Amino acid sequence: MPIQEVSLRNVTIFDHFWSPRQELITDVTIPYMEKILRDEVPEAKKSHAISNFRMAAGEESGAFYGMVFQDSDVAKWLEAAAYSLLLKPDHELSERVDELVALIGRCQQEDGYLNTYFTVKEPGNRWTNLLECHELYCAGHMMEAGAALHEAAGKDDLLHICIRLADHICDRFEKEEGIPGHQEIEIGLLRLFHVTGKKRYRDMALRFLELRGRDPEWFIKHTPPHPGIHYGGYDIEPSDTIYNQSDVPVREQTVARGHAVRQLYLLAAMADAAAETGDREMLNACQRLFDDITQKQMYVTGAVGSSAYHEAFTVDYDLPPDRCYGETCASVAMVFFAHNMLKNHPDGRFADLMELELYNAALAGMQLDGKRFFYVNPLEVDMRVSGKAPGYEHVLPKRPPWHDCACCPPNLTRLIASLGRYLWSEDDDTVYSHLLIGSEATTRFGRIRMESGYPWQGDACYTVADGGDFTLAIHIPGHAASYTMRVNRHLEEYPVRNGYVYIRRIWNAGDTVSLNFDMPVRRLHADIRVRSCAGKTALARGPFIYCFEEVDQEEQLSSVSLSPEVKIDTVSSLSGLPEGMVCLSMEGKTDVSPDMQYSPDLIRRRPCQLKAIPYYAWANRSPGNMNVWIREQ
Amino acid sequence: MPIQEVSLRNVTIFDHFWSPRQELITDVTIPYMEKILRDEVPEAKKSHAISNFRMAAGEESGAFYGMVFQDSDVAKWLEAAAYSLLLKPDHELSERVDELVALIGRCQQEDGYLNTYFTVKEPGNRWTNLLECHELYCAGHMMEAGAALHEAAGKDDLLHICIRLADHICDRFEKEEGIPGHQEIEIGLLRLFHVTGKKRYRDMALRFLELRGRDPEWFIKHTPPHPGIHYGGYDIEPSDTIYNQSDVPVREQTVARGHAVRQLYLLAAMADAAAETGDREMLNACQRLFDDITQKQMYVTGAVGSSAYHEAFTVDYDLPPDRCYGETCASVAMVFFAHNMLKNHPDGRFADLMELELYNAALAGMQLDGKRFFYVNPLEVDMRVSGKAPGYEHVLPKRPPWHDCACCPPNLTRLIASLGRYLWSEDDDTVYSHLLIGSEATTRFGRIRMESGYPWQGDACYTVADGGDFTLAIHIPGHAASYTMRVNRHLEEYPVRNGYVYIRRIWNAGDTVSLNFDMPVRRLHADIRVRSCAGKTALARGPFIYCFEEVDQEEQLSSVSLSPEVKIDTVSSLSGLPEGMVCLSMEGKTDVSPDMQYSPDLIRRRPCQLKAIPYYAWANRSPGNMNVWIREQ
Repeated sequence: MPIQEVSLRNVTIFDHFWSPRQELITDVTIPYMEKILRDEVPEAKKSHAISNFRMAAGEESGAFYGMVFQDSDVAKWLEAAAYSLLLKPDHELSERVDELVALIGRCQQEDGYLNTYFTVKEPGNRWTNLLECHELYCAGHMMEAGAALHEAAGKDDLLHICIRLADHICDRFEKEEGIPGHQEIEIGLLRLFHVTGKKRYRDMALRFLELRGRDPEWFIKHTPPHPGIHYGGYDIEPSDTIYNQSDVPVREQTVARGHAVRQLYLLAAMADAAAETGDREMLNACQRLFDDITQKQMYVTGAVGSSAYHEAFTVDYDLPPDRCYGETCASVAMVFFAHNMLKNHPDGRFADLMELELYNAALAGMQLDGKRFFYVNPLEVDMRVSGKAPGYEHVLPKRPPWHDCACCPPNLTRLIASLGRYLWSEDDDTVYSHLLIGSEATTRFGRIRMESGYPWQGDACYTVADGGDFTLAIHIPGHAASYTMRVNRHLEEYPVRNGYVYIRRIWNAGDTVSLNFDMPVRRLHADIRVRSCAGKTALARGPFIYCFEEVDQEEQLSSVSLSPEVKIDTVSSLSGLPEGMVCLSMEGKTDVSPDMQYSPDLIRRRPCQLKAIPYYAWANRSPGNMNVWIREQ
Repeated sequence: MPIQEVSLRNVTIFDHFWSPRQELITDVTIPYMEKILRDEVPEAKKSHAISNFRMAAGEESGAFYGMVFQDSDVAKWLEAAAYSLLLKPDHELSERVDELVALIGRCQQEDGYLNTYFTVKEPGNRWTNLLECHELYCAGHMMEAGAALHEAAGKDDLLHICIRLADHICDRFEKEEGIPGHQEIEIGLLRLFHVTGKKRYRDMALRFLELRGRDPEWFIKHTPPHPGIHYGGYDIEPSDTIYNQSDVPVREQTVARGHAVRQLYLLAAMADAAAETGDREMLNACQRLFDDITQKQMYVTGAVGSSAYHEAFTVDYDLPPDRCYGETCASVAMVFFAHNMLKNHPDGRFADLMELELYNAALAGMQLDGKRFFYVNPLEVDMRVSGKAPGYEHVLPKRPPWHDCACCPPNLTRLIASLGRYLWSEDDDTVYSHLLIGSEATTRFGRIRMESGYPWQGDACYTVADGGDFTLAIHIPGHAASYTMRVNRHLEEYPVRNGYVYIRRIWNAGDTVSLNFDMPVRRLHADIRVRSCAGKTALARGPFIYCFEEVDQEEQLSSVSLSPEVKIDTVSSLSGLPEGMVCLSMEGKTDVSPDMQYSPDLIRRRPCQLKAIPYYAWANRSPGNMNVWIREQ
């Protein structure tokens, strides 16, 4: 039996950090987002996504509005709502979900086709422009929603719609050539396969992967001219084959390139496919790109895709903090990718990456009130230029009410709502714990409960509720320099492989494993090839990367620095932030500015107090300058 | 009598730094550039500028090619050739100039109009689109060339052509409203006025200045739609009134904004006009903008206009070194502006700015062989991104053979060829020496000769050849912390005002004034609001800003830093550079990169040797990384 995730139906989270966030998602975010999709929030940009479905069903008149992939906002919201119904039964939400699914059903064409843009606006042009038109992308998201409603909420209506849709897609693309312009259908089909067991969907996903890059000119040959119509949000050139990773076969890819979310959805699907088929070449490609991204193209927060131009990866070590793109969706997709890599083999680097994204780059996408979201996640904000000056237009210092391209908010929402999926796996003889998030998993070896002071404290205690003969493999966070482990209160040592400690025992009901490790403040330094980080340090503690917001400082951020040896204290939450957040306080130095713009005088420095907060919590007070990296001198 | 420049006819340069550069201009650059304008250099991009004139004269068939302002390349080349003929008589060049001027004459329309683009391509659309079509801009440059040929070469044919052109422009715009989309006509008309004494041209220039910004919607109201035609090199929006400084009247401008060269040509004309009319409000506006630019918007090299988007100023202290635009033309225009400010009052800040630009940002525009030119002058080059990655496309690490928009090469050429204009001024009782460039000036008080070891040594000796009763006002470079002065070998002190020492004497023929000052290596530090320079230093010595090229280092540039206290030695020229160049050598430190992209390990540093060269000489060896600013820690 290969490694399989413990289904989120079998995981209950009771974590002092994440449970309140899941409650926020169920109580605030999901209903609020639904209102936006229904255009009922006056201050938010219009979504019209649900109206588009009404129009496609012939139940409303008017014009299609929004992105060609506007349907996917509804699909991702439905997926999140499915998880929400599992976390917290809600009869009214359940009914509204059913109504919405029924509406979607009424939009489906007789042959199974489902896409409001083409149904409303260009019914004659279905499937004519795979490069830009996102029909397969929207279908993939709908399949994920269908699978989620089945798994989490026991609702099968959307699943049936998606089966018809998937059959329609298989009918069309099983023989004919075609590759998606934006990867996602591969994920959706694999998920539909996992739920239905129908090999046809798996094979269709594999075929889409297989064909990609076989003919590097496929999009050039198969994209019709369409002057004056911009399907993709911006002009997508058929000849830019790097943009959507269609220039080389997927197994031959060596570095992450092009549009970051496309690249990562592709990798997530490839990793899932490799786990399914045992395809080593596919897995090796995934591993190469994992290494490339995490060692050369990732910000310290976990953000990826450094360039706003085409929302893309650029070149190794090109990681400007102030013009960072770091799309929230890309960080969410990093979690998907790492999670699917864990299905192939348990390696702490995958779990560490999930942790980095969950506590930092992805989580920063959401305001603490659960209502607003970042699309772009910079590591440095200068209010004079951010959001304004050329090259900085995308770097907003404040999460906006909604987005023209609203892919990120429901993406992060579905991730947090489905967090249970990412915590535990199991195979023939082992239960794996990947993340120190308080929860109880019901596995094939019975119930295992884990309680933890994490992420603020370095401890966790596992209780094997039902006993049995199996291995409990616990991932020790990569940042823990050492740890102590007690089994039933006795210090014990067990073998560690790839970041997991493997505890093979015949367990008695009630046996416990407790872990303890220090969580000192770490000063991170970057590879010297990251120009923008040279001479700087980023502070971290436990899973968190910290940042400096100007509102907490006595001095301008651009003037401050930190001595290499200075002691950094933890303090309780700073003014204007929720209680319980561990913040940092330290003595820094501030440069006294010379009188002239350029002066030959020695720089004078005087002491000042500096405070840092976890990066995920930035931009929750009045907008101001922010830095993750601080000069160390 | 107001302060007037000593005409370049009356100044002979014999400077060990600049004379070889002027020879390079006469012997190499001007003939080479002429070949390019005639499309005779196969490896260079096509210019077609002279062919356009032949077509306009009806002597060649074919299509207009190039920018709508391609004529100005020819005008600036002619202006440079005029100065060249004064520096070094050249019968063949003189004949070719005459022929070219005759060709230009044959292009002139009966009513005086002169512009090849409209004559060849859109004869019906003359003067219909002042925003983008550069007719007034080209006319201004032609007038400068006409004035230069008259002043420097005693040739009046082009002057007569320009008088007809100016009269045509006056006829059209004296009563009718109109403002130039790219300032330059004001400079040209004022120069024509200085040469001809015809007040009509002065008044027309003043009117163009006066009307600018009076009606902020002027361009919106007067720009015809022209779908599919891009006159300006890129789309220029009529509503973007900041771009060309037409949103407020010129006297009310407070900060430099929009397209840098437009802003600076405007300021150069305003300063000239203020000197001519005594308009205090105009002068105050110039002074405000001078302060704004030099204290908040200028790179340490003198480069200005930090954004590639619209080649523009952005906001205070936004000076990214690696995406710097810093157009060569903008630095050339800074010299024009400062020079015209000196006509209003002698202030060392204006002379210092001329010096900064001449020895650094402007001069770096030209390759040491005189053949290739930069348009963009960055302060940091990373070969992985420069010239390639999004946002860095403009940052070339190597001067290209020629440019589609070739404004910079002839602009810098005419500046260096006419350097004599910028050295000396005079008024009723004073002769001013602005720059320490070895030369002899024939003034109303007779000949004054200056010899100097500058820019490599801090000394200068003035000899008053003819004697007389007057004041010799010598600008002491702003970087000199102190100096000693000897008059006829006796230490003397004289009053200093605004950076000039005023030596009032009854001079005997042969009297000398010798100046000595130290030229230590200076470590410059930026205002703390310049984020990109925080914690860094730039090295300077005398008028030069230095830079580090990777070819001279033992270590990667991004890894190196300098202790605040380390001694910096001067060394003779480095390998691959001309003899006589004073370079710098020092012990630096290199960071040892951690094993991971982000590591909690302390940064280890070990000593390494660092070498720096004058910034103007960068990119004359094999292309590689370059930094002006270096970490100081």
